[in-house]
Amino acid sequence: MAVKLDTAPPRGMKDLLPAEVELRDQAAATILATYKRYGFRRVETPALENLKLLLGSGGGENEKLIYKVLKRGAKLDAVTMQREEDLADLGLRFDLTVPLARYYAHNRATLPDPFKAIQIGPVWRAERPQKGRFRQFTQCDIDILGVASEIAEIELILATSSALVALGLEQPRIRVNDRRVLSAMASHCGVDAARHGEFFITLDKLDKIGRDGVERELREAGYDEGAIGKLFELFLSADDGSADGRLERLARVIPAAAEAVQSLRTIVQAVAREAGDRTTLEFDPSLVRGMGYYTGPIFEAVYGGGTSAIAGGGRYDRMVGRLLGHDVPACGFSIGFERVVSILEERGGSAGSPRERIALLFDRDDPMTDVVASAGRLRSGDRVVSLTLKRKNLAKQLDDLAGEGFGSYGVFRPGPAAPEIKPLARRASSEGGADG
Amino acid sequence: MAVKLDTAPPRGMKDLLPAEVELRDQAAATILATYKRYGFRRVETPALENLKLLLGSGGGENEKLIYKVLKRGAKLDAVTMQREEDLADLGLRFDLTVPLARYYAHNRATLPDPFKAIQIGPVWRAERPQKGRFRQFTQCDIDILGVASEIAEIELILATSSALVALGLEQPRIRVNDRRVLSAMASHCGVDAARHGEFFITLDKLDKIGRDGVERELREAGYDEGAIGKLFELFLSADDGSADGRLERLARVIPAAAEAVQSLRTIVQAVAREAGDRTTLEFDPSLVRGMGYYTGPIFEAVYGGGTSAIAGGGRYDRMVGRLLGHDVPACGFSIGFERVVSILEERGGSAGSPRERIALLFDRDDPMTDVVASAGRLRSGDRVVSLTLKRKNLAKQLDDLAGEGFGSYGVFRPGPAAPEIKPLARRASSEGGADG
Repeated sequence: MAVKLDTAPPRGMKDLLPAEVELRDQAAATILATYKRYGFRRVETPALENLKLLLGSGGGENEKLIYKVLKRGAKLDAVTMQREEDLADLGLRFDLTVPLARYYAHNRATLPDPFKAIQIGPVWRAERPQKGRFRQFTQCDIDILGVASEIAEIELILATSSALVALGLEQPRIRVNDRRVLSAMASHCGVDAARHGEFFITLDKLDKIGRDGVERELREAGYDEGAIGKLFELFLSADDGSADGRLERLARVIPAAAEAVQSLRTIVQAVAREAGDRTTLEFDPSLVRGMGYYTGPIFEAVYGGGTSAIAGGGRYDRMVGRLLGHDVPACGFSIGFERVVSILEERGGSAGSPRERIALLFDRDDPMTDVVASAGRLRSGDRVVSLTLKRKNLAKQLDDLAGEGFGSYGVFRPGPAAPEIKPLARRASSEGGADG
Repeated sequence: MAVKLDTAPPRGMKDLLPAEVELRDQAAATILATYKRYGFRRVETPALENLKLLLGSGGGENEKLIYKVLKRGAKLDAVTMQREEDLADLGLRFDLTVPLARYYAHNRATLPDPFKAIQIGPVWRAERPQKGRFRQFTQCDIDILGVASEIAEIELILATSSALVALGLEQPRIRVNDRRVLSAMASHCGVDAARHGEFFITLDKLDKIGRDGVERELREAGYDEGAIGKLFELFLSADDGSADGRLERLARVIPAAAEAVQSLRTIVQAVAREAGDRTTLEFDPSLVRGMGYYTGPIFEAVYGGGTSAIAGGGRYDRMVGRLLGHDVPACGFSIGFERVVSILEERGGSAGSPRERIALLFDRDDPMTDVVASAGRLRSGDRVVSLTLKRKNLAKQLDDLAGEGFGSYGVFRPGPAAPEIKPLARRASSEGGADG
């Protein structure tokens, strides 16, 4: 026998056990059902994209984390220069938005206008492994392409907050901002337009490194105390009152932000009226969202006392233009499926058992054809029936079966008589899930 | 604006439109529901595996088609020799069986024994693009690990044929053979044990290149007319009568195949008695199945007049041993999801519309908050409601909406009164799907 191989999944990736998959499937079904009621329809793109598409797509730091696929056969043989760009031609997608823009550009002739898409699927980022972060993880996105008005943002926020509530994540808080507000604020603080991107990246760290850390980074980047002071003054002035009131004050201080503020107020008012009892809207002028491709309103959902987002999105009106040659208004909201599932798991969530699970035990000597027929008759009642070889220690086996999520069992007996089905004693399930 | 980029998906891969996804989702749900009734539970592994695991896994020709992922960062910088093996450390899985064996070896302490797994997900193979074949495609597998008896094969075949029937693919034909039968036949024809693998690869082409083609290849490989003649004699002698009768005759001609023949007869008899009215079993001594890892019974499902398999599988008792150090009996059956879906599509299959889809039209000037509230009230009846900006040419727009799968529409009116919902004229849908 050969040398044993490492059986762990690749670093930073994970195997999902049956009970985990059941919880995930149920969560996905809940989200999809909600999104479909809002008129979204699911689409799919391949996991791989041409590297040329992924690079320079506005994905920001994520573009550095792309898993690149080696060229194949003759193509690879033809590589003479050994630069990384020459070796690879495909990459695993790092999000679902860049592929969707390509999909829309490629298929728009057959797609409805406006196009309201659901996507759920894995994305890959070669990040430094850390607790709760994985290198393959699932996102669940909705996007509206072809709508310039704020109705798109309103529908996205309502549908996403409804989905979160349907999952049992009551009272999600939605934080909103606008890239145009950020730009106007940066200009107000004297930041050169060319340096806005870099300024936002520092600002985005406020949650992680605090006000002191941000001030230090800005000072190191050469900003003077005046600019930094002005920035935090803006945050403070926006720091209390309703989202609507804060927005109004901001527009008075920075007239250049007026149009963006008007957008945000439209969104905040409509969402508050429709969903004000089940979600909270906050205007957060320090909200940046990582992706470089956003052009207008940006938003994220936070749950409970947490500060890290469980969903994020925004408007990206210029991404399709890079592909089509003319811009198409576009806007999306993405649920971080892994974070949502981990909240459900922490709560002891379980997918429940919609159907009775029966283990039908048989002996090695029982006629196989009769055993199979007996299971078939039991199963016809839409029950889950799993054939299981009887072990010597029946008491131990029954205990194991209960742990695996079986609710009852029967022992095969020859002839047409159905086996007697007896309940299994419930036990604290480690893996079964179906007991919960 | 930058130069336009190619918007097609990578070569050999495809985008799925909403109606395609709906049909696929419905087919997947049907298959999963059937498999769950047999006691299987879904698990998931990452799309990427360590290349060391994939290479030498018994995947046969498929190992040459692996998409390999370039090492990242420092690891890549450290590469001095420019051999392909040094550049890549991960690969996209080419099937779901090799990852499952790793999964089982890694997680067996927390898995039920026996372990009955469902997997549904994409696999990748860098095959030469051709009609109907894609480089990313979905497989749907069930596997039983830990069961040495034929009950495993019987359950796999019954569950798979039930799933095919549930999809509307009535009367699937199941062709069975056994790797041990193939080996006994090869030895009977004078083929050296070391050359069995190569002999089977040629035999596997019988469907594609016909008897003449196989004879030519065998002659070119140096086999004499005697060996070739003996082989086709075996096929002819097995060429009529019931599967059971053929198996009996074969065991008389090749006593070395007796044990394998007994396995196959047990399987054939049990499946015939349980599912004889909805599926046909055939013994096909020329059936090989491509993968090198099979050790015992092998089987595939064929539908209608077709000759190419829509599902395939078999026993692979030695794969887990490569990882664990000791063998674990294992057996699986994999539905070629793409082929099944393309049969459903050719039939004009459609996912149907479980819920009413309503387009709620509004004007640019309507108060957005009221429009959203009106949609919310309509939606609360569990209906699908999609907000849509009213266009100038209403007749054209209504026609388009019908084509997109909407069954009815309403026009927003101010105030608390609900909009009047009117049916849309049905039209031959190109894309909508929900009309069917």
